[in-house]
Amino acid sequence: MSLTSCSNELLASAVCSEGVHPEKELLDWVEKRNRAHNYSVQPVPLEKLSGWHFEASTGNLIHSTGKFFRVEGLAIKTNAGSVHGWMQPILNQPEVGILGFLAKRIDGVLHLLVQAKMEPGNINLIQLSPTVQATRSNYTQVHGGRRPMFMGYFLGEERVRVLTDQLQSEQGARYLRKRNRNVIMQISDDALMQPPEDFRWLTIGQLQRLARQANLVHLDCRSILGGTSLGGADAQEGLSVLLAADTFQGRVLASIRAGDSQVEKSLAEILSWLAHLKCHCEQQVRSLPLKEVVGWKLQDGVIRHETGRFFSIVGMAVQAASREVASWHQPLVKSMDGGIIGLITQMRNGILHFLIQGRTEPGFLDLVELAPTVQCAPANYLQGTHTPLPAFVEFLQAMPRERIRFDTMLSEEGGRFYHSQQRHLVVELEPDVSIEIPPSYCWMSLGQIHECARFNNLLNIELRSILACVPLAGCAN
Amino acid sequence: MSLTSCSNELLASAVCSEGVHPEKELLDWVEKRNRAHNYSVQPVPLEKLSGWHFEASTGNLIHSTGKFFRVEGLAIKTNAGSVHGWMQPILNQPEVGILGFLAKRIDGVLHLLVQAKMEPGNINLIQLSPTVQATRSNYTQVHGGRRPMFMGYFLGEERVRVLTDQLQSEQGARYLRKRNRNVIMQISDDALMQPPEDFRWLTIGQLQRLARQANLVHLDCRSILGGTSLGGADAQEGLSVLLAADTFQGRVLASIRAGDSQVEKSLAEILSWLAHLKCHCEQQVRSLPLKEVVGWKLQDGVIRHETGRFFSIVGMAVQAASREVASWHQPLVKSMDGGIIGLITQMRNGILHFLIQGRTEPGFLDLVELAPTVQCAPANYLQGTHTPLPAFVEFLQAMPRERIRFDTMLSEEGGRFYHSQQRHLVVELEPDVSIEIPPSYCWMSLGQIHECARFNNLLNIELRSILACVPLAGCAN
Repeated sequence: MSLTSCSNELLASAVCSEGVHPEKELLDWVEKRNRAHNYSVQPVPLEKLSGWHFEASTGNLIHSTGKFFRVEGLAIKTNAGSVHGWMQPILNQPEVGILGFLAKRIDGVLHLLVQAKMEPGNINLIQLSPTVQATRSNYTQVHGGRRPMFMGYFLGEERVRVLTDQLQSEQGARYLRKRNRNVIMQISDDALMQPPEDFRWLTIGQLQRLARQANLVHLDCRSILGGTSLGGADAQEGLSVLLAADTFQGRVLASIRAGDSQVEKSLAEILSWLAHLKCHCEQQVRSLPLKEVVGWKLQDGVIRHETGRFFSIVGMAVQAASREVASWHQPLVKSMDGGIIGLITQMRNGILHFLIQGRTEPGFLDLVELAPTVQCAPANYLQGTHTPLPAFVEFLQAMPRERIRFDTMLSEEGGRFYHSQQRHLVVELEPDVSIEIPPSYCWMSLGQIHECARFNNLLNIELRSILACVPLAGCAN
Repeated sequence: MSLTSCSNELLASAVCSEGVHPEKELLDWVEKRNRAHNYSVQPVPLEKLSGWHFEASTGNLIHSTGKFFRVEGLAIKTNAGSVHGWMQPILNQPEVGILGFLAKRIDGVLHLLVQAKMEPGNINLIQLSPTVQATRSNYTQVHGGRRPMFMGYFLGEERVRVLTDQLQSEQGARYLRKRNRNVIMQISDDALMQPPEDFRWLTIGQLQRLARQANLVHLDCRSILGGTSLGGADAQEGLSVLLAADTFQGRVLASIRAGDSQVEKSLAEILSWLAHLKCHCEQQVRSLPLKEVVGWKLQDGVIRHETGRFFSIVGMAVQAASREVASWHQPLVKSMDGGIIGLITQMRNGILHFLIQGRTEPGFLDLVELAPTVQCAPANYLQGTHTPLPAFVEFLQAMPRERIRFDTMLSEEGGRFYHSQQRHLVVELEPDVSIEIPPSYCWMSLGQIHECARFNNLLNIELRSILACVPLAGCAN
């Protein structure tokens, strides 16, 4: 295989489901790291969180240093979706964090340095995480802890090769215009031969295989990988070698290099569709004090909606030997159970297309981002109002087993979300099934999605999360 | 020539300096349109503008309908540039307008439908303008005028081929997060054979040639053309035919298709540099009532800075038979004279590179956009403070004649700016001259700039304005 350009090297790593450590060894290692660390996470009423308090004048939940993040209020008016006005609590963390993988060639194939890392909100406390996840508070050490390992590679202190480096949005329904820098930096082949015990070198294909286990591969890994361009125009030569016969992975690979004559819409048309959606999106987002947010209340030490729907904010006390700080208290967001992130795919004009939604969320910087076909917690729609379920939810839930290409429970980020998981579902419609799509949806090839992934604030985090699960390696059903 | 893809068709039009109308005929036509229209533009004190008033509670200058735009205040704190805090008036026009060209093939070459249009602030009252320039107020007819011609092609009412369609920023130092949709839509070859008398079909190359005449080609033409990807990866075949020997245009053309091994930085590295700039940009922009803006005053019916620098807001009474509304009053921005928009180019690794600035302006949606090497009114720096001139201003002003590739006075948009023009200057350094560049500057190939032009809020309007002047056709010195 002669894949030399950087995107082709990433692609070669993605189709490589074997790395320097066999899968069994990696699972044993995670198990061992789980046992090696002492941790406990216990609920604490928000009023009693050490270091945090409700600010008298606003009711906002803030840290005594003014750093980290704060919970404040948001009022939204919008012409998107079926609900046109509401208020909600929102996380405000006005600093850009770094989510970064180190990468290097081992036996000629790119491997990523994966960390077995504990987060308070993780269902499995240890998850496979990027090399570095650091808020600016972390790496400027405002909380007095240690600087996260390997930061120098991401702060320009060491010589590296940039494979991907882009600001990307976090959850627009929970964060106010929050972005993180999603980064993969390649280091020289002979560096870090013996990484510390919490780190292992894995291929992207191995991470994809492991993503099929519930709540094992951290959202931040999915965020980086799903937002990385694999292949592109110059992938052709490599791909012609790799293209398997008639497998879903083969169709996925072919979708990366789909030509202009094969795609449903040209990229120019897709960008035009997106410009149109942004032009017609009328959205007013206004920050307000948490105490003025109507419909939400502090009850039993938890902030929740009066209907019990949407999400709640809970307090937790954390004890952990393996983190930069040995113990701390913090608020966490608890989402509704039963959330679905679903991606519909279909062979169209002989090329696998992905049904992408142009979606508006209150915390987006630029009104509309590309999102999965379905992104929804159906339980939010069951009681009270007669608001209909969003498009394709029931269609996806009724999908027969043989059309399902990926189906795993995967977690939200455990540093801000408590035991919050979503069903990640990739389905492939039969080629002859015709479905009607609303104007805010669009069929795209994977190559077109990757093209958009290179620029900031185009793919939302839920889309990146599910894209990272679309199987490229030899791990499909 | 077998250029079939859409970007190659645009490129073929750009290198074609002859169209269905010879240049002489076009200049006569502009002259005739100037004579055909009755117009007069007379100053009126802002307090006496019909339909406009200073709102009592805020001091903001607003229209009685609440539509069009308003002049309000802005307070800026930033770590960018040499001045770290100031207040200023700013235009707030929270609606997306459409700047659009219709295009069609004539004798196999793409022509754009250009309008000879009067704007109150134009130095030459009639300028060559896009087919359509319409604010949302215009085309929804809130002011009671006629709907601009050809709108149907841009509002999805007619079948068209999208050549380019992207939201792009307006002047970030004068507008608060304003964007317009920059569009080129191709119609069928047999449509609009006889356009109305104010319209003519021109090739892109003809527009580029005419841009060498002072204040003739409107900023909105330059905005669209400078923000349009020409060529790209698939331009190779066509270009090998077109590449002239050793001319500046030949080097410009070759820069469009520069390969990964020839560029100074890869696109991944450039996007990483931009992500780094955005991460380290600390900017707080706060809207405030105009009457709270310190340092500015209403004097003799004009809003100006107490030093006389920066810009002023003036009132004008307009009489014109050829506009949607026959007469109206409006405020206009008058910039300082002597402004420079300058682009330094240089052969590096055998490829022409452009020295691009990562620039922060208060009205940007996303902190940093790509900007020309120099964008500055030196007069703003001469009096009072000891603030040094921005990088490369004096260097550019001292450039010997034989290094200059383009040098013309071109106007700001005459619908909002009054008699405001800037010297547009493209220079080419000798290949062996070594210059030191600050960290917020970066050498890029034209192909890389075009790649960025496809996505919104990456190229600021001054960069698009000067890019449209970089000669591709046979019109250089």
